Amino acid sequence: MSRILIALGGNALGDNPDEQIEIIGQTSGHIVDLVEEGHEVMIAHGNGPQVGMISAALEGERMPLPECTAMSQGYIGYHLQNRINAELNRRGIDGKVISLITQVVVDKRDEAFKNPSKPIGKFYTKEEAEEIERQEGYIMMEDSNRGYRRAVPSPMPIDIVEKESVRMLLDSGYTVIAVGGGGIPVAMEGDSIVGVDAVVDKDFAGELMAELIDADYLFILTAVDRVAINFGRPNQIELEKMTIDEAYGYMEEGHFAPGSMLPKIRAAIDFVESKEGRRAIISSIEGVKDALVGESGTLIYR
Amino acid sequence: MSRILIALGGNALGDNPDEQIEIIGQTSGHIVDLVEEGHEVMIAHGNGPQVGMISAALEGERMPLPECTAMSQGYIGYHLQNRINAELNRRGIDGKVISLITQVVVDKRDEAFKNPSKPIGKFYTKEEAEEIERQEGYIMMEDSNRGYRRAVPSPMPIDIVEKESVRMLLDSGYTVIAVGGGGIPVAMEGDSIVGVDAVVDKDFAGELMAELIDADYLFILTAVDRVAINFGRPNQIELEKMTIDEAYGYMEEGHFAPGSMLPKIRAAIDFVESKEGRRAIISSIEGVKDALVGESGTLIYR
Repeated sequence: MSRILIALGGNALGDNPDEQIEIIGQTSGHIVDLVEEGHEVMIAHGNGPQVGMISAALEGERMPLPECTAMSQGYIGYHLQNRINAELNRRGIDGKVISLITQVVVDKRDEAFKNPSKPIGKFYTKEEAEEIERQEGYIMMEDSNRGYRRAVPSPMPIDIVEKESVRMLLDSGYTVIAVGGGGIPVAMEGDSIVGVDAVVDKDFAGELMAELIDADYLFILTAVDRVAINFGRPNQIELEKMTIDEAYGYMEEGHFAPGSMLPKIRAAIDFVESKEGRRAIISSIEGVKDALVGESGTLIYR
Repeated sequence: MSRILIALGGNALGDNPDEQIEIIGQTSGHIVDLVEEGHEVMIAHGNGPQVGMISAALEGERMPLPECTAMSQGYIGYHLQNRINAELNRRGIDGKVISLITQVVVDKRDEAFKNPSKPIGKFYTKEEAEEIERQEGYIMMEDSNRGYRRAVPSPMPIDIVEKESVRMLLDSGYTVIAVGGGGIPVAMEGDSIVGVDAVVDKDFAGELMAELIDADYLFILTAVDRVAINFGRPNQIELEKMTIDEAYGYMEEGHFAPGSMLPKIRAAIDFVESKEGRRAIISSIEGVKDALVGESGTLIYR
């Protein structure tokens, strides 16, 4: 029996509420496979498209980004909690699932605040993006060759306010949904913590949470079954596993795309390096069960 | 030491994010007063204005009402959790606070689905309301002599999916925020529960939750310090306490306004009748501490 943190991508949750609950229904089946095998599971998720949609819609209300991420935690957390619960009931598993509003602490002096780099929301053409920059004052960036999106600061997470709650709930047998959208970014201000305009990367927030709950496995989900080197070229090789030294080597050779596979590899390395025995797996959602026994995904280990 | 459920009104949370966190900051002081005295506290809250704002803003995304309530749980729950946590820290109290995404079960055959009666969102003039009815197909209603608002079905809550989680967390010493906006309305469909287009009254959802967690006190908060009979007339009398028989009598005499004080009185009676020793208090937020020792608020008892 292992403690597993699964980091789900926000981009893989569909483009509207109907699609989202449908996709999460399928995802929940794969998650409950792990619960059924006796593992303790925590789910972190991204919110790029969702927080972009929410912040664009609520622009007239001057809704700050931390509040928009809080809303996305409710929106996505509800679907995950509802569908995982349904799947547990369908299989007759006596399990409990819970979604927590989660705040992640960042440092206001983080360089990321000077250099917004996290793409959120809808994709636009170059011309549309230039128009939005002029009209809204947003910074727009090209993302994954799929178009232009709004760029916001993405500071590194340094602590998670609700870490003890998550730990206690996992110890009590709950499947826990937390650090949604990378968590609501907050920073210390005197003896208080206040929201800051940013979106934390869900892989880094998930990695930190995995350390804080002393997880055995960090699963970082992606659209492909395995990490590849020479990706998209004739000599592409899918990796069943790599040591952190091999991973560093591939990173230096430029095999992993920034803003895509690179942060996943970095988060995986950070987790494996944080304590002996910790392992990271980069996998598709369909592959999680097989990946745990080495039959899918890419294992990153010491 | 008592177990207390506090039902906060969504209308008392301000009109924008800055106002909301400011008001919740003050509210949190009064809540932490109770925690400091050793009481176990659960907070339910309304979301009328907030869910109205969110659903109006996300109309283009065809965002259903249950998802909008889920978002409002994130939005308001974040502010409550953040400010209560700050207040606990400021006073050096070793307390923990947590916000849960909460689903409330309703019956699809509830008469409320034929007769939308719960006002949500912004207030409009009669002319604006007629225009919205024509354009959006919404049903609009007059509310509290303050103008017209969108009306949605408000079925009675029959169960709360996360009741055991809330109970366990209160037992473990947590201050718990749950059933936000009356809970996300869901109904049984086969062996699954699915979202339904409605908003559950937070006083009734709070009352049911208070029963399910075996609370000693249900606090229903309102803008006034005490319930009054002959409200707004020269012979107005503020009540320090009333038995449920007296409350029934005043209800029959028409002392309490439908959609305003009446549902609060009904929820209070339901709670007091549900088990011996249970007490309800209708009070302002400023009065909660004094109300517990009979120096403010209106006590409803057997």
